[in-house]
Amino acid sequence: MGATYRALCRHGFAALTMQHIADESSRSKAALHYHYETKHDLLVAFLEYLAQRFEARLLGVDAVDPEEQLFSLVDVLLDPSDRADDREFRTAMLELRAQAPYDDDYRQRLAEIDRFARERIRETIANGIDCGVFRADVDPTETATFVVTVASGAITRRVTLDAADPPIAAARRAIRAHVESHLLGAEGEVRTE
Amino acid sequence: MGATYRALCRHGFAALTMQHIADESSRSKAALHYHYETKHDLLVAFLEYLAQRFEARLLGVDAVDPEEQLFSLVDVLLDPSDRADDREFRTAMLELRAQAPYDDDYRQRLAEIDRFARERIRETIANGIDCGVFRADVDPTETATFVVTVASGAITRRVTLDAADPPIAAARRAIRAHVESHLLGAEGEVRTE
Repeated sequence: MGATYRALCRHGFAALTMQHIADESSRSKAALHYHYETKHDLLVAFLEYLAQRFEARLLGVDAVDPEEQLFSLVDVLLDPSDRADDREFRTAMLELRAQAPYDDDYRQRLAEIDRFARERIRETIANGIDCGVFRADVDPTETATFVVTVASGAITRRVTLDAADPPIAAARRAIRAHVESHLLGAEGEVRTE
Repeated sequence: MGATYRALCRHGFAALTMQHIADESSRSKAALHYHYETKHDLLVAFLEYLAQRFEARLLGVDAVDPEEQLFSLVDVLLDPSDRADDREFRTAMLELRAQAPYDDDYRQRLAEIDRFARERIRETIANGIDCGVFRADVDPTETATFVVTVASGAITRRVTLDAADPPIAAARRAIRAHVESHLLGAEGEVRTE
């Protein structure tokens, strides 16, 4: 999986071959083919590995305060890799996402990742409403979709426009502003306390 | 350009050949090569054509009321094609966007489209502030970036997740909520009137 990551960063998704992945690992191409019949099969396994890591990172966020919990989840969404120089990887992932309409296996895994992130955020917002931190008139499902949409847009714009960090930082600020005005509520707004 | 559009919808970006484009047009492949040396050159010309059309659609939005103007611009962003069944085309465009980090020509054209959209929205918000419809403490540049980020995320999620219209409709609602709470202001907020 590490070799697949490195090969994707080096060659991108479109040009990737089993040989590239073997070159990044201690295994031969034949050994890779023993486990994964095709590049497609290996990439599906890689997506499953990414989904597990991503889900583990989202589950690892465990703050007492729902607001802090929500912002920590947003940080995981906006920085899906542990690595600082992950631009190549995000690019390869966008290429893979663009293939999803042609490939049920990719689409299912990506949909699962998206669903997991939305559900974790929805649950955090619902908890925040239950304990009176967030307003009772907030729709947790709608807000969770909004958050993943902003994150997705920021990552797409960052990859596409070579704009370095600004889209990511702007997304963080936008989500924070949304939380402050819609979830925490302004004066005169109904709160559940 | 129409033939390129149809060929992209039919074959996607990765598999596209000059022959596919010729097949959708009344010209031969040789005639295409006379005008465009490579597929890359033709796609750059196609992006320029799309940019012109998109810019014309954004310029064509000319409402008196800044709020109405803003929502009409959002509608152009969220529905970049005139066609109802544009999912194939959006998919091909996402594939092309994912190639932008590898291709300066694509990246420059996409950045120009993004810049034009942001500038048009920024200008609309600034006008709205000047005539007292929007709050004076709104940052037009930041808000414009937020709007294009939400639109970009909605389109990426729609293509990737096969979720039909919900991401687009959710983006529209999210932008509307943002405008209502941040630009138009709640009771007790400072307004420029």
